Amino acid sequence: MAKFMDVHHDMVGITAEQMQEAHQADLAIERDEGVHFERAWADPESGTVYCLSEGPSKEAVLRVHERAGHPTDEIHPVPLSV
Amino acid sequence: MAKFMDVHHDMVGITAEQMQEAHQADLAIERDEGVHFERAWADPESGTVYCLSEGPSKEAVLRVHERAGHPTDEIHPVPLSV
Repeated sequence: MAKFMDVHHDMVGITAEQMQEAHQADLAIERDEGVHFERAWADPESGTVYCLSEGPSKEAVLRVHERAGHPTDEIHPVPLSV
Repeated sequence: MAKFMDVHHDMVGITAEQMQEAHQADLAIERDEGVHFERAWADPESGTVYCLSEGPSKEAVLRVHERAGHPTDEIHPVPLSV
């Protein structure tokens, strides 16, 4: 298992409720891929959302986002943290 | 006070020890700007580092990074989180 940070750039105007719904949509199916979405942070003005997850691969994380209806292809493994 | 996520792209090969040192350099001076660096996540392979902070403005956060020796200009306020 590894940690990942992925980034979405197309969520201009996202509300707290929409963000919660998107996160719940990930949580509802993440087990299928052995992934867990831990946290997410959003900038509604620029439409940028950062998601911190744990999972077996980049591809597994991105498949969960895609199936949940908010695909992205920008993701980095983040093995180091403080 | 607001939350911010900033991103560095020039830290290829960063080690856990170097990341800890960089974070400590921020913590040592952050009070001057009323900023607090909470967490950071790094991908040594691409050189990408994400930093989560709290502070009065983008500029205050970036001034701390610059004075600590690792400037960046990529930063977003992240008022929403899950």
